[in-house]
Amino acid sequence: MVSFAKGHGTKNDFVLLVDPDDELLLTDAAVRFLCDRRGGIGGDGVLRAVRARHVPEWSGDPDLWFMDYRNADGSIAEMCGNGVRVFARHLVAEGLVPAGTTTVGIGTRAGLREAEVLPDGRIRVAMGRPRLAAAEVEVSLAAGVPEQRWRARAVDVGNPHAVVWLEGDDLDGLDLTRPPVWTPREAFPDGVNIEFVAPVGDHHVRMRVFERGVGETASCGTGTVAVAAALADRGENQSESTWRVDVPGGSVEVTLRDGDAWLTGPAEIVARGDVAWPQEEA
Amino acid sequence: MVSFAKGHGTKNDFVLLVDPDDELLLTDAAVRFLCDRRGGIGGDGVLRAVRARHVPEWSGDPDLWFMDYRNADGSIAEMCGNGVRVFARHLVAEGLVPAGTTTVGIGTRAGLREAEVLPDGRIRVAMGRPRLAAAEVEVSLAAGVPEQRWRARAVDVGNPHAVVWLEGDDLDGLDLTRPPVWTPREAFPDGVNIEFVAPVGDHHVRMRVFERGVGETASCGTGTVAVAAALADRGENQSESTWRVDVPGGSVEVTLRDGDAWLTGPAEIVARGDVAWPQEEA
Repeated sequence: MVSFAKGHGTKNDFVLLVDPDDELLLTDAAVRFLCDRRGGIGGDGVLRAVRARHVPEWSGDPDLWFMDYRNADGSIAEMCGNGVRVFARHLVAEGLVPAGTTTVGIGTRAGLREAEVLPDGRIRVAMGRPRLAAAEVEVSLAAGVPEQRWRARAVDVGNPHAVVWLEGDDLDGLDLTRPPVWTPREAFPDGVNIEFVAPVGDHHVRMRVFERGVGETASCGTGTVAVAAALADRGENQSESTWRVDVPGGSVEVTLRDGDAWLTGPAEIVARGDVAWPQEEA
Repeated sequence: MVSFAKGHGTKNDFVLLVDPDDELLLTDAAVRFLCDRRGGIGGDGVLRAVRARHVPEWSGDPDLWFMDYRNADGSIAEMCGNGVRVFARHLVAEGLVPAGTTTVGIGTRAGLREAEVLPDGRIRVAMGRPRLAAAEVEVSLAAGVPEQRWRARAVDVGNPHAVVWLEGDDLDGLDLTRPPVWTPREAFPDGVNIEFVAPVGDHHVRMRVFERGVGETASCGTGTVAVAAALADRGENQSESTWRVDVPGGSVEVTLRDGDAWLTGPAEIVARGDVAWPQEEA
């Protein structure tokens, strides 16, 4: 049996493991078992906390906690805006950082990330600089009428996004059971995450997202940052702005300042216990 | 925090609670939280173990463990062939029955059920008498070509089933993303679970199932019993027969003897721990 916790940030959920000395053999098969929602624990991925000194590709502070993030299929992932909040919450909850710590430095495959625990319990993470592209892209729904097309804004947040602003169209009515289609195809040769956004109020929007290779999800941290960057660019030049973005799994806030982005949102640990570690497959 | 375990039988999965003295306030909201696959633990339902003496509708042995079974939406359910195996496994694993016990009597809303722990670790449960109906029913796929129709056998196993025997058709190729259609509609006024069955070998079949109100699932215990009863009826009169039924989530065995049915299959506990009990909603 191995100790685990389960947590989520706006319903992006993870199995959390603590492995200071890099002793767990976290094979692809083990990750798939842990993330299996019926045969295992269930999650979008695994977040393993290991001391950074054991990570060959890490050249920074060896005493930091490193977030070894795996997708549910076992593949390695770099960063996840919702995941790093849940990871920080877990470090605090397990006493893996000194009591009273409010800013936690976390090693990730995308570099050092600082997570700030706010007085209201939410966690804020620096997300780097979103880059708006000049490319003109059009998006339509595979299951919709071909005439229903929208112009989309291309935004790179380390991964590619296309943001569609729905002025009067019905966000809840969109059929996202099949991947949306974009033109020109060359705009995103490796696929793209597509956000559909509807207004709620001043600096407050709702969004649904279709993640490439996954489908519609309850939340996408980098997607909310892409949306804020696209919206800020629509208005007059604002050196600082904060956007509330409601996703199906909850609500987050994105702050933009001098071109950099911060993502603030909830992170909850809902259970902890022991799991039967899977027998090794080949 | 409340103690829980998570387990499954052929990927029909449950959150297990032990509450001998009926002290947990298991509201619908609590069940929905526990079964929430992203925001909670995740499961098809909750199985609460409570001493039968605390259950007003139970008139049998007051010292038995009663299986308080709830669907994921909080509603009360009577019995579940896969669930009762997992429940029995949990009673044994937690030491809630004397060490060495091989036959566990369990109170359920459908009456007393005996679960037998076999030497190979599988668990066998008596499932009562499946009843074959004379009604002629035809089934077709909503997403398929209207010409593709099959005759189905109606079987009642406490809940209604229609069993379709696919002689040469491709079981894996069926599109079960939408509910199959049956005629006449009056044959199943409350809906029906529909099993599609393909041969594998002697007394060995594969099945996919569309559960009413749910969709395609990885397993359905009563469905496997319905399939065995329909198959036995196709052959010469057999007073006793055993059928292996492979479902997407694993494999079970159904034994028929003098009209009664027993279901034998795996049951696994994969994790145990503590869960943050949800704050009460209205």
